[in-house]
Parts: sequence; C-alpha cells; structure tokens
Amino acid sequence: MRIYFAGSIRGGREDATIYHKIVSVLTRYGAVLTEHVADPKLDARGEELSDQQIHDRDLEWLKSCDCLVAEVTKPSLGVGFEIGKATEWGIQVLCLYRPSESISLSAMIAGCDQVVVETYRSVVEVDAIFARHFGVRRPGAALL
Amino acid sequence: MRIYFAGSIRGGREDATIYHKIVSVLTRYGAVLTEHVADPKLDARGEELSDQQIHDRDLEWLKSCDCLVAEVTKPSLGVGFEIGKATEWGIQVLCLYRPSESISLSAMIAGCDQVVVETYRSVVEVDAIFARHFGVRRPGAALL
Repeated sequence: MRIYFAGSIRGGREDATIYHKIVSVLTRYGAVLTEHVADPKLDARGEELSDQQIHDRDLEWLKSCDCLVAEVTKPSLGVGFEIGKATEWGIQVLCLYRPSESISLSAMIAGCDQVVVETYRSVVEVDAIFARHFGVRRPGAALL
Repeated sequence: MRIYFAGSIRGGREDATIYHKIVSVLTRYGAVLTEHVADPKLDARGEELSDQQIHDRDLEWLKSCDCLVAEVTKPSLGVGFEIGKATEWGIQVLCLYRPSESISLSAMIAGCDQVVVETYRSVVEVDAIFARHFGVRRPGAALL
C-alpha cells in the first residue's frame, strides 16, 4: 500500500514531533511517500525547492497513492487542499484529530462523507486506528 | 458574476474584521454567496447547522460560482479544501494574502498555476485588485 502522509508545514510545526511518531507507526502498514513532512528538522520555511516544484511533486505523489493519512489538528491550507484533491480523485482519506475545547474541526472535513475522521488523545492510540483501517502490519518495520 | 468568498472560521476568527471589509468591497463586483463568513459576530464555533449540512451547502454554492475569492493569511483546512475543489472544477481562484516575516504561504497554493495570489498590506488595496481581475464595478453597491 502506498500512503501519502499530510501535516502542517508552513502553517506551523508545533506538531512535528507527533507527525514523526505517527509516521514511524504508519510505515508498518505501507510505503509512506512523504516522510519528510514528519522530519522534526524541517521548519516552517519548508523545503528548498520552488513552490511549483513542491506542488507538482506532491500532487503527483498523492495521485499515485492508495490512501491519504492527514493529521488535521493544526489548521493548514496545504493539508486542506490535499484532502480536497484526494476526495475528487477517489483516494481513501483518513484524518487523525486531537479534539480540544477551544477549537473544532472544519465542517469541510468533519462533514465530508468521503473522509474518515478518527479522534485520538495520544500517539499510542494510532497503531490501533491504523490496524482497524488497514489490517495487516508489515513484519520488521519500526515500532513506536 | 457569482462569487464564493472563503476565510477561516473554525481555524480562528482573528481576521474576521478584515474579511468583513473585503466582502463589502467584493459585493461591488458580483453576488457574494457566503457573506456570513465575513460576519464579525460569527465565532470559531461556526454556524448552528450540522457539519454535513454546512459541507453540502457550501460545496453546492462553490460549484455554482464563477470565482472563488479566498483570504489565505490565516491557515485554514476548510479554505484549503475549497481551493483544492475549485481547481479541480475549473473555477477561477483569486487568493488574497498579507505577507509576514514569520510565516510563508503554503506551496500548495503559491505553487498552483490555477490559482492567482495577490499580496496586500491593507484592505484599502483590495478594490484595485478586484478592479484588475474583475473589471466592471456594479453601480450603487456599498463603498468601503
């Protein structure tokens, strides 16, 4: 299975450590094409490519994937854009969301019947979420 | 011309007053279907409809429009989602962005050749931006 992982980059890197832990679990279920999104060394300036190079490469990767897994707690234009594209292209979308009292998830995501939203409080819960959605783990892949 | 205006709601209402001023200018160029997005009384909890009702209504409105005008300074999943949909549907997209030193605009937006991004520093500049893009103003409509 080919998986596109999406998380906030220029929208803010407050959750980068969480993305890193999620991706280390996600690699047990398939090939994650966008591991750089989860690199804690990547800051909010993003990659050293032109915007168009990033856009074109990422959409090509997204189009080639079986599933988009998006961490949607931190609002991000790019993550929303990719979810919009994936729902148009018939790509499975799984969103991970940490609820809080101060903010709610966008109705565009929470109200979209082509998107599955799973809430969690701690990254230790995501392995069970992925197991439920993707079934078989790959042997020998990294454990959290 | 039918215009869909998009701005952050649940992502945060810090820019609601700016959205309000933008929409008051935008109504001079066409019918704005989403004036509620610019209502300073609308808070980050959003509207009193179900998420699915909001999602379905908003996408129906977006599909019926000639143009999406999005204020993209405040990162928002919903705004990104709508831009992703509009680019798939062949709807003209004009983004308004106030640059800052601390954050950069998502590469998904800045690097998308179906999106026009106009930077501005003050809302007094948006009338000239709209005049350049849409041409004719409607007589008698509200002035900023």
